[in-house]
Amino acid sequence: MLDAPDFGLITSSFDAQPYAAGAVIFNEGDPPGEFYVVKSGTVEIRRGDAVLETLHENGIFGEMALVDGQPRSATAIATSDTELVPLSEKQFLYLLVATPYFALNVMRTMAGRLRRSN
Amino acid sequence: MLDAPDFGLITSSFDAQPYAAGAVIFNEGDPPGEFYVVKSGTVEIRRGDAVLETLHENGIFGEMALVDGQPRSATAIATSDTELVPLSEKQFLYLLVATPYFALNVMRTMAGRLRRSN
Repeated sequence: MLDAPDFGLITSSFDAQPYAAGAVIFNEGDPPGEFYVVKSGTVEIRRGDAVLETLHENGIFGEMALVDGQPRSATAIATSDTELVPLSEKQFLYLLVATPYFALNVMRTMAGRLRRSN
Repeated sequence: MLDAPDFGLITSSFDAQPYAAGAVIFNEGDPPGEFYVVKSGTVEIRRGDAVLETLHENGIFGEMALVDGQPRSATAIATSDTELVPLSEKQFLYLLVATPYFALNVMRTMAGRLRRSN
């Protein structure tokens, strides 16, 4: 089993932005944009009325559109007052190159989502 | 949109192993093991009677169990005479570190699977 750190290093190293409870971070169908790490608070990933996932501290979302360049596959909404660290495509690529465990952690998160979705 | 090469560099750089049509590469529930790149032939990823995905040249599979250390989430079967390049955990980690586009390509593949599964 590969050992890897969590995303706490990102939330402690990059600036966070506040989102009030109820704020929409992005909508399903939006063009691709940033990748997000939850520093504090709660984010729901929704498609229609279904909640696909609820994210807390150190949770990540938004990686799919960033890696494949396709529109957002779901809507992300802050369900409490939330702080998020947004990473641009350039920052995301930098982390991939500089810190391979970052890639592994993103893959691990995606693998968990695939297991739950199948 | 991030640009990235495909997995052809792996199939041309690492040794392939033959699997006869009908051979089971791994079964759902098996302990985690290698990651595979299809060099030639066809592999079906199945759960029960459902075919989740059909893979051809340069397709990849087996990354989920490798990155999260959990049992295989599905069964992989060669459905024609097939050549596969197996990569160990150590080789997979080496590629992550040495070639960041490898990580990006794996993530892109996983993103496509998540989009299709949701």
